[in-house]
This record gives sequence, C-alpha cells and structure tokens, in this order.
Amino acid sequence: MNTFGKHITLTTFGESHGPAMGGVIDGFPAGFKVDFDLLNAEVAKRRPGASVLVTARNEKDMPEFLSGFSPDGVTLGTPIGFIVRNADHHSSDYDEMARVYRPNHADYTYIKRYGIRDHRGGGRSSARETVNWVVAGALASQWLASKGIEVQTALTQVGPITASDIFDRLMTDPAKPFTLEVDPQLHLAMEEMVKETKRAGDSVGGRVGCLITGVPAGIGSPVAEKLHANLAAAMMSINAAKGFEYGLGFRAANAKGSDTADTFLAAQYPGAPLTTSTDYSGGIQGGISNGMPIFFSVAFKPTPTLMKPQPTVDTEGNATVLNPAGRHDPCVAVRAVHVVKAMAALVIADAMAGSAL
Amino acid sequence: MNTFGKHITLTTFGESHGPAMGGVIDGFPAGFKVDFDLLNAEVAKRRPGASVLVTARNEKDMPEFLSGFSPDGVTLGTPIGFIVRNADHHSSDYDEMARVYRPNHADYTYIKRYGIRDHRGGGRSSARETVNWVVAGALASQWLASKGIEVQTALTQVGPITASDIFDRLMTDPAKPFTLEVDPQLHLAMEEMVKETKRAGDSVGGRVGCLITGVPAGIGSPVAEKLHANLAAAMMSINAAKGFEYGLGFRAANAKGSDTADTFLAAQYPGAPLTTSTDYSGGIQGGISNGMPIFFSVAFKPTPTLMKPQPTVDTEGNATVLNPAGRHDPCVAVRAVHVVKAMAALVIADAMAGSAL
Amino acid sequence: MNTFGKHITLTTFGESHGPAMGGVIDGFPAGFKVDFDLLNAEVAKRRPGASVLVTARNEKDMPEFLSGFSPDGVTLGTPIGFIVRNADHHSSDYDEMARVYRPNHADYTYIKRYGIRDHRGGGRSSARETVNWVVAGALASQWLASKGIEVQTALTQVGPITASDIFDRLMTDPAKPFTLEVDPQLHLAMEEMVKETKRAGDSVGGRVGCLITGVPAGIGSPVAEKLHANLAAAMMSINAAKGFEYGLGFRAANAKGSDTADTFLAAQYPGAPLTTSTDYSGGIQGGISNGMPIFFSVAFKPTPTLMKPQPTVDTEGNATVLNPAGRHDPCVAVRAVHVVKAMAALVIADAMAGSAL
Amino acid sequence: MNTFGKHITLTTFGESHGPAMGGVIDGFPAGFKVDFDLLNAEVAKRRPGASVLVTARNEKDMPEFLSGFSPDGVTLGTPIGFIVRNADHHSSDYDEMARVYRPNHADYTYIKRYGIRDHRGGGRSSARETVNWVVAGALASQWLASKGIEVQTALTQVGPITASDIFDRLMTDPAKPFTLEVDPQLHLAMEEMVKETKRAGDSVGGRVGCLITGVPAGIGSPVAEKLHANLAAAMMSINAAKGFEYGLGFRAANAKGSDTADTFLAAQYPGAPLTTSTDYSGGIQGGISNGMPIFFSVAFKPTPTLMKPQPTVDTEGNATVLNPAGRHDPCVAVRAVHVVKAMAALVIADAMAGSAL
Repeated sequence: MNTFGKHITLTTFGESHGPAMGGVIDGFPAGFKVDFDLLNAEVAKRRPGASVLVTARNEKDMPEFLSGFSPDGVTLGTPIGFIVRNADHHSSDYDEMARVYRPNHADYTYIKRYGIRDHRGGGRSSARETVNWVVAGALASQWLASKGIEVQTALTQVGPITASDIFDRLMTDPAKPFTLEVDPQLHLAMEEMVKETKRAGDSVGGRVGCLITGVPAGIGSPVAEKLHANLAAAMMSINAAKGFEYGLGFRAANAKGSDTADTFLAAQYPGAPLTTSTDYSGGIQGGISNGMPIFFSVAFKPTPTLMKPQPTVDTEGNATVLNPAGRHDPCVAVRAVHVVKAMAALVIADAMAGSAL
Repeated sequence: MNTFGKHITLTTFGESHGPAMGGVIDGFPAGFKVDFDLLNAEVAKRRPGASVLVTARNEKDMPEFLSGFSPDGVTLGTPIGFIVRNADHHSSDYDEMARVYRPNHADYTYIKRYGIRDHRGGGRSSARETVNWVVAGALASQWLASKGIEVQTALTQVGPITASDIFDRLMTDPAKPFTLEVDPQLHLAMEEMVKETKRAGDSVGGRVGCLITGVPAGIGSPVAEKLHANLAAAMMSINAAKGFEYGLGFRAANAKGSDTADTFLAAQYPGAPLTTSTDYSGGIQGGISNGMPIFFSVAFKPTPTLMKPQPTVDTEGNATVLNPAGRHDPCVAVRAVHVVKAMAALVIADAMAGSAL
Repeated sequence: MNTFGKHITLTTFGESHGPAMGGVIDGFPAGFKVDFDLLNAEVAKRRPGASVLVTARNEKDMPEFLSGFSPDGVTLGTPIGFIVRNADHHSSDYDEMARVYRPNHADYTYIKRYGIRDHRGGGRSSARETVNWVVAGALASQWLASKGIEVQTALTQVGPITASDIFDRLMTDPAKPFTLEVDPQLHLAMEEMVKETKRAGDSVGGRVGCLITGVPAGIGSPVAEKLHANLAAAMMSINAAKGFEYGLGFRAANAKGSDTADTFLAAQYPGAPLTTSTDYSGGIQGGISNGMPIFFSVAFKPTPTLMKPQPTVDTEGNATVLNPAGRHDPCVAVRAVHVVKAMAALVIADAMAGSAL
Repeated sequence: MNTFGKHITLTTFGESHGPAMGGVIDGFPAGFKVDFDLLNAEVAKRRPGASVLVTARNEKDMPEFLSGFSPDGVTLGTPIGFIVRNADHHSSDYDEMARVYRPNHADYTYIKRYGIRDHRGGGRSSARETVNWVVAGALASQWLASKGIEVQTALTQVGPITASDIFDRLMTDPAKPFTLEVDPQLHLAMEEMVKETKRAGDSVGGRVGCLITGVPAGIGSPVAEKLHANLAAAMMSINAAKGFEYGLGFRAANAKGSDTADTFLAAQYPGAPLTTSTDYSGGIQGGISNGMPIFFSVAFKPTPTLMKPQPTVDTEGNATVLNPAGRHDPCVAVRAVHVVKAMAALVIADAMAGSAL
C-alpha cells in the first residue's frame, strides 16, 4: 500500500503523468512553527535540474499545503495535506512503452499485480513519487532540528569512484567531531563519472551515506520495528536501492567480537548519558538508539533506462527492441542523496513520536 | 512493538528466563493440513545443541499449539496460539548482569527506553525470541511448499572464510538449475573457524544467503511494503544483523546499466510467464516479484558476549569489568541460517496472502 | 488519527476554512471503470443547499481526482488522491469563536488534546469533513453496485416525528420485497418540523436508517472487526451521532430467544445460499454476514449551534455569552442521510476486499 | 482478525474446546506493579458459576502469565503473554452440532467465511473468548485506577424489568455524586426474571450500563478513532450485542438543541478544568473526552441457544430439528456486565496511552 510510518504517517498518491502528486502527513506534533522558505529550499534540492548531473525534466515542484496549519504556519496536530502539481508532461515520449515491457522496470510486474498499468513514465514506480517523501521529510527534518537532531547525507560512491570508507574514522573515534563530507576531489571525480556515463547513453550505480546525530538514547523498539529495521525498510523503498548496511555493516561478517565491542566509557557525572569508545554498532543496540551517532549506507543500481536501443519483449511476449525516449538519469544515486535524507528524517521522527521522549 | 506482517501476522512474547516464549499467528489461511512432525523437525534444527557449533543450552523447544486447528490438524482460519516453555534456566549465571551494562548489548538502551529491564539473559533481546519466529516460519514454509514455493538458506561466510560469490552463477544464468549449497570443503573450513573462535573465547561474524524459488510474478507492493523492503526489515530484525542486500546488492554501486539489464526472453507461448536472461534484480522489480528466483544476503556481527573479562560500566556509570558467565555463541550466523529461513517464509507468505494470488 | 478502513482505506485531511479538504483512497480494486457523472451527482446530494432543510453554505464541492485512474477512468489499483476546494469562506463570522468555547462543541476538547485549535468553523470537527467521506463512499457504492450490493438510507425520525418502526416488516418477513422508504406524509411532517425548528433558531435531533442488500454470506470477521462493530464505529464517527443499533437493536433487551430465533429455511437446492424466516439478526451472525438484508439505525443529537445567544465561557474560563453567527443547520440528521450511506458503503467495500470473495 | 486497540493492543486466540484461550497484551506501560490477587478476583467474577444466574460450566479460569513481568510483578514494557486453560470439556455434547447449523449462531457464517469450522462450542464465537478480554481488562483497570480512572458497570435491564433511566440524574445534575447502582428490588426482579426464563428453557435479552469517571479532558481523536466510536466498536464486539448509545443516546433524536446544550460553568480558578452544568454529551465532545463522566449503554439479545427443540437445517440445507444439548445461558447480559467493564477499560487505557497525557 502507500503509507509509511506508524506514529507520524505519510500516505502518498500520484502517477508521474497524472495531475498531481501528493500526500497526507498524519500524527505530526501540534504547535510547531514551520519555516516554509527553508522547506521549499530543501524540496528544491531534489528537483530534476537542480544539478547538472540529473535528468532534464524541469518543474516547479513546490508543494501546496492544504491543511494542518494555523494561518501563521503553526501545526495544528491535524493531518497535513499537500499536493505537488505535475507540470511538464511529454506523454507522447512514452507511447512506445504502452506496447513493450521495459527491461528491469516494473512494467511487467505491475501487469501481473494489478492487471493494468499506467505506462506513462512508470506510474507509481516513477522516481517522481519521491517528491512526496522529500516534502514530508523536509517537515520532519525541521521538527528534528528543533530537538537537536541532524540528518546528513552524501554521495559516497559512483561506479568505481568510492568513498565507501567514509565512516571508518567515526567508528573508531566517535568522540572526535565528524561531518559527513566527501573529499572535494573525489566528488569531482564522481561528477565526471556521471557526465561520462551520460555521454555514453549508459547508467551507473552509486552509494549514499547517511549520518544522524543528536538522537537521544532510548528511541526504537526491541523486537519488531527495530530502529535499524525501520531505516532499512525505508531505504529499500527508494527506487533502485539494492543494499543497506549500518554500523560495521557487511564488514561485520569478517570481524571478531573482541575487536568491535564498543566499550562503554565511564559516565562523566552520575546519571550522565553513556558513550562508547567506538561506534561499530552504528548508534543502535537491540533496535534502540544508544545516543551515539547513527550511520548507514545504501547501494543503488544503475537506472535501467538507457539512451540506446535495448532488446526486450512486447506485451504479447514477442521479442522486440526498445528505442530510447523520454528523459534519462545516468545515476539515480545523485538525486537519492536527498531522498535518503528525507526518508531517514521520517523514520527518526516517527520513532521519536512513538517513544514519547 | 511485537507484531510482524500485515495479512498473516505474528505477534510474539517471552523473556528468555520467564516461563515461556510464544506467539499468535493470525490470518493464516483456513483449510491447510499441517504436518506436525515435519514442523517439529524444522523447529529442532534451530535448537541450541542441534549443532556442535552453537551454544550449549539444551532445551526441548517444542511448541505447544493451543488453538487454530481442527482435531485432525487442519487450520481453521482462526488465530494459532502457541507457546514454547523455557526449561533450562541458570538465572544465577546472570546475577552480575543486574549491576552492569554489557558492552554492545541492549542493556543500557532498554533502561533508556523502558526505565526497567529483565537482566536475565537479555529479556526480549535474547536470541531465544527467534524460537517463536522459527515455529511460525515452519508453518509458513509448509503452506508455501504447497504452492510450489521453496525457501533455502545457507551459511555463506564465517569471518574470512567466504562463499560470498555464491549467487554469481544464478545471476548470470538463472535458467540453469541452481541449489543453494556451499562447497563442503568451504563449509568445513567455516566450522573449523567457529571452533577455533570458541576455543579462543572470542566470537566472529558471518553471512547467511537465502534463495526463494517458485514465487509467482505479481507479489508485493510498488511503494510502501515493497517485497524487498519487507524482506530487509524482517532480516534486520534478527539479532546481530548489520546488512542486507538483494540481487546484485552492494556491487550494483559499481555496475553499469548496460551490463545488468535483465533482458526479457521471448515468451515460450502466448501468455506464458516471462523470464529474463539474467537475474541481477534478484527476482523483484519495483517492489513486486517478477517470477525469477529471489535471493539476498544478510551480514551478522560477532556476538558481543565473550568468554573473557571485558571492561564496561555498572548501572551507575562507573568503570568496571564484566566477567564471562552464561552460555556463549561464538558465531550467531550459524543459528541465523534457520532464522533467516523462517523470517523469509513469513514475509513471502504474508505477501502471498496480501496479493490474493 | 484520520484513516478509516483496513483493506480499502480512506485517509482524509482538511479544515473547513483552510484551502481544501481531501483524501487518499488506498487499496481500491484495480480495473474498475468509474462513472464520474454518477459520482458527482451523488456527491452533490450532500452539498449544503441541496435541500431547503440544511445550512445555506453554497459551494461547488466537486472533487478533483489527482491520481489512481487511467486516462479513460479505470482504476489502476494505485491510491486515489482527491481534493475538494473550500470556496465560500466567511471567516470573520467566526472571530468571536477564537475567544470563547462554544457549548457542546469540540473547542475545549481540542485545546486539551492539541494545545491549539483552528477556531474557524470547527477545524477537523466541522461537518465539512464529511464531504471527503461522501466522495470516497460514492466510489465504493459504484463498486459495490457492480457486485449487486445496494446501500439505501432514509431519514426516519426528526424530533417527535418518527418512522422508527420502519424495519419491523423487514424483520418479520424478509422474503417479501422491501425498499427503504418513509411514508411521504411522514416525510413532509419531518420537513415541516425542521423548518419550524429553524424559524425558532433552535435545532432538533433525528434518526437515519440504513438498509444494505446483496451482501453475500461470509463477509466480516468473528472476533475483532466484526462487520457490525465496524459499522458501529463508522457511524459513531459521524458528527453528532449518539447511538447505533442493528437488527432488533435495543428492543432485543426485551425479547425472548424463542421469539427471535431467525430459523433457517430449507435450502431451495443442494448448496443453495441459506435464508432465514425472520431477520432479527440484521443480516449478521457472529460478526459475519449471513446473506440476509443488513440494516441499522443511527441517532443524531440536535446540532449545538443555535441562532440565539447562549451562555458559555471564554478561553480563560470566565462566563460570557455566545452570540449566534455563521451558518446554522437545524437538523444534522437531514444531511447525515448521505453520510451514513457513504460510510456504510466504505465499511462494506472494505470488508468485501478483506474477505476476498 | 483478532487484535483490539492501537497503542495498548490485545491479540487473542483460542477455541472454547481447544487446549487453551490466551492472548498477548502489547504496549502496556512499563514500571507498573500489578496486584495479581486483585486481578484474579476480577477475572473470577466473570467465571461461569460465579452467579446462580449463569451457565453451569465450572472452570478454574485463572490466567497463567508467561511474560512481561519482572520477578516481583512489575511490568517490563514488553508484551504480556497469558493463557487460560480450557478444563471442562464435554465435547460429545456438541456432536449433533457438526451436522446442523444452529439458528442464530455463527455456524453457517463461519462455513461461508472459512470453509471449515470448529463446531464444538462455537469456536471463536463462543463467549469463552471473553475470558481473554476480562484478563486484559483487569490489568487495564488497575493501571487506570492508578490514574484515578474508574470503570463501573451494572445490569440495567432484563427483558421487561428495566432501569434504563439510570443515567437520567447524572445527565441533568452531573455535579452531584453518582454511583452506578441499580435499585436492589429491581435487581432482585431481574434475577427472578432470569431464573424464570431458565426454567422455561428460554432466553431473554438485557442491557448493561457503564460509567467511567476520572478520565481527564483531551483523550481521544477528532475524526477516525473517536473515543466513543472506539467504545462502540468494542461493545459491539461482545457476543450478542445489538445496540450502543452514549450520553443522551437514542433519545437525542427527539431532543432540542436548546434543551441539551451542556453549558460550561465558569472556571473555579484561572486554568481550572472546565465542567458543564449538564452531561447530555456523555463526557465526549468531537470524539475527545471533556473531563465529565463518560457513560453508555449496550443492548444484548437473548442467547439463541434454547433448552427446547428448534427447527433448523443440516449442513446440506435440509430441514431438521436441533435438540438441546450443552450448557445454557438464559441471559448473556448477566455475564456481559464484566465483559463490558473489561472492554471499556481496554478502550480507555488504549486512548490514554495514545494521547500521552
């Protein structure tokens, strides 16, 4: 279905080539004054065209809020309805797609699931859906910021250009200040890789890192709805995501317990929040935050849309060739940086609301 | 909270050192005849002591079913209640744990979450909880088997001994028969590594692979509750899990779209289910199964319980040393093989029930 | 929160004096062609001004659908987003309400719940919210009609003018054709009573009856989410509802088992759906439909808004007098006829979707 | 399905003639010390045989708690699992029921819903299920009592013997102390009516009243999950319930707004909780508690089981006669007094937990 979260929920709708995207945020705390300029600036970052690296589709993409606020922009505790109009349609670009199943897309699976699909731009499986998440995530981020919680994300890999060791320093020395930033030279190399890939009409995978600081200890649940399980589900909901790891991640499989114990440091004063000497755990123990930085990585596959003819089948199952059409995103991980941030903010806000801290 | 799933739900309870574990399976299809011998055999595999590799705690661990079946073992469509008694308590082993926070455990986070904890054996965070999942998963597996769906799991890595390329052949040639089996020599090496680690009083991480075959195309949801997002959440709910990847996984970050397109093959007859030449997608497109094999990997950290003194703090925050006590599981991934299978079966059964296919 | 239903869900938003009302219908079956003219006609019936009897607020009230349909109006199985703009604001009518708590309204309870309220027209507690329900209910009704299910409602009481025995004939002789219709003379008397009440600046209570035919046996659940429990919750969600009864209702308290047994009639052919000689049960046994007509009644209190000065307190708790302002609905039961129908259709559609019949 | 509540949930299982009933209470607040003697005494009140008026089935009916408590009986915040063994089976009493559909029972509807049924004692539709509710309700009641909230219930009608005006005094003068007590003479007359009915092998309907005091203002939700809608759903979940009304109830249909306005009284000091001169609203405005007493009534039909032969059909649809067998409850409303109390406590506890007051 189309609802994320449990205490603060986001229910979304919208086909990329229908009249509008939109959603309902329910359970958002009452009495919070929203900075709409900041919110719009955050939403704008995701917009196609906001970077040279992403697809050329150019839209306003600004949300219209329809409920949930007092006239002076304070949340009422009532559901926040919003829409984002779809403005820039070239539906004819997609005519061929009515007759073929694109490889590595959700065309065929939709037909098997629903018996019908909106072929124009991928329907609900379009990355356009993520505008809803970014709107809601921007609201959640502001609320979290008011509680001292910050969510940062960065592009940490594009194809072979990788900063996948970016959290190593944080794990081994979490007390030292740490900002999630990729070396500028490396970032330039990633940009170059995206441009090259675009010129080649190809696409390339990538990885996004996320760091969440300021979460108090005690957020989450110990069995179902573990904090990291909720983060994993949210991240794997993002289009093209193929993997999630937090803390030591997959390297944990080749680690010894004696090397990765996250020893508690003596409290600075009686009753002080505890810290650990290392943060291999990624800030979560038994599904519940321990007050240390939370961090994770998400792997994204290359978008399956290519700017070259591809063999495929038509809706009858006959072999055919798909000619390139529509817009093209050579590296979905670039835009996913903003989507990962939004979804992480929603998960943490939901858990905060549910833990009543 | 403590409920998994949406259409077929599992709600569990139980502290490892309380009277019993147990759960309620609701929404299980009516009219299905269960083979209880098979079910008990499946549950027995998880039991501590079932392998030389795992902790020595020895229990009967057989579920008592309390409802949901006709006298001849056919499901009634009503909730299936079951309990598994906790038989083998050495609570005094855990006395020290009332006074200290074990490193890398959920002791401290419980206190921050609930203000109280059952220190005996980890409470709800004990791996003992997984017996509930294995009982429910064994039921789900039988139902899935009746629909031609099979879930297989294997231990694919223990520390440096790794078969992490085990799905490579499947990805590139999914038409060729494939069974999830680790090379026996490699498996022996893994066993040796676990024994060595145990002798050293240390622990080691690992990885579990899972292959699901026979799932028809059209199962899952395209936005929230994507099939792989639900799998990720279920896997990340397992104690000590640190990472999840499906299909090409993290390697997708360094892949090109033109190399990993999963081209459709022409249908064998009009209306035949479609297949793809490769399976980099891992059997899921846009959150919905496409009929190809589903496979994924889960990384597990080394258990934080060691058989050597560890520095830590007491519940006042003062530095202290934790002496080894209780049982010890040198590699939780060994037992997780059965837990991954159970949770995967529950997720697929839930999605099948929700998709009404 | 703001979500109704479980399999087909309706999540709504909107303050009566904000930009728009709206909602998301999720889980609606795919492949159903909607008649939008019929839908709009149904929505129009609820509109204030559709009858001489109700409040004078005059709006277009036509929904704008934003997603979920193919270009030719067939449902895609994806969420249906819609909005209904709020057009006719006289917010200054409500200025006084910022400073006082209206008697018998939700003003004070909102402040205690959220610490903030939108005083303009009652916020989420305005009957304006029911336009969302009527839009969704009209969709549900069309889908039910395609399955032979019809929902009828009628105004059966206004103050002392009552047709509260309207279901008596149906209970004792359910085989005889029955249409839910109040005697025209009685209906005229009800209209006259409403007009008189309006002239007096007062308000009056009422009762709405509902008949649902064509529901197959086997819909609903036996413990939680009983079909009649879901109907009761939906009806009690309607503004001003004070009571719900189905089948024999409150008269059951003074009935004997031997008089009200709903004896099964012999099947007309082997395997034929069974019927009963009487329908005191109201078409539901143990929470599950039995194939007989379902019927119930809902009591509504007089709206607390009067066209005369009323003693009350201000937001500081000081005694004051509330002067009449805004619009006035002398008998909310009149419009509730359409709202009861919509909510009943949603409950039955939800149960049908959940029972997979 | 089989789960009640949202924040404090109760998931139940058990067929009356299976090994045990039971349930899981999840979300119950941590750190609450339970008085188990008090709890058992409360559960014992519901027990068949606790009154001369009810069915003769004699069981221990004491819950065994399996999790969720520290060794000294303090809640851990973890799920509370419990079972109640079924001890007193006379399954052969029910043999005939395998071959017939009892009139006015859920036998036929189960078959249509699930295709299978446990005929022994009604399966999940047995009133035996309510033991689960009473166990959970007794826990909830203790927690509510610690917050100054009291739930009282009374039998207010048996057939023609009625105290249905019992809340009249409370509505018109809520400031005057009020205890929910039926006149002893009237109660004796009700008992006599039950005995007479039993002698006649017949059954009779009844009514239960419920009064809840001490609920602070601000509990509940304004649209879906209104406090009274949740109460209605819970009450209509009780076996044989046919109607629910709160506050003025069905009499509201014949009331004038000017007579039933519940005028606010001036606050006794600045910021004092507000009270109203009357309580026609029944303590709830717009779905949210206003701090005044909450009260409602539930109507129950006569149990359909009679101690005389009844015409019915067999499972093939052929006419047959059902001979009396098993136990017989001449007036289910008698025992429902305890069930209404339990369910009311669960609803209020759930709403308290969700409103975080």
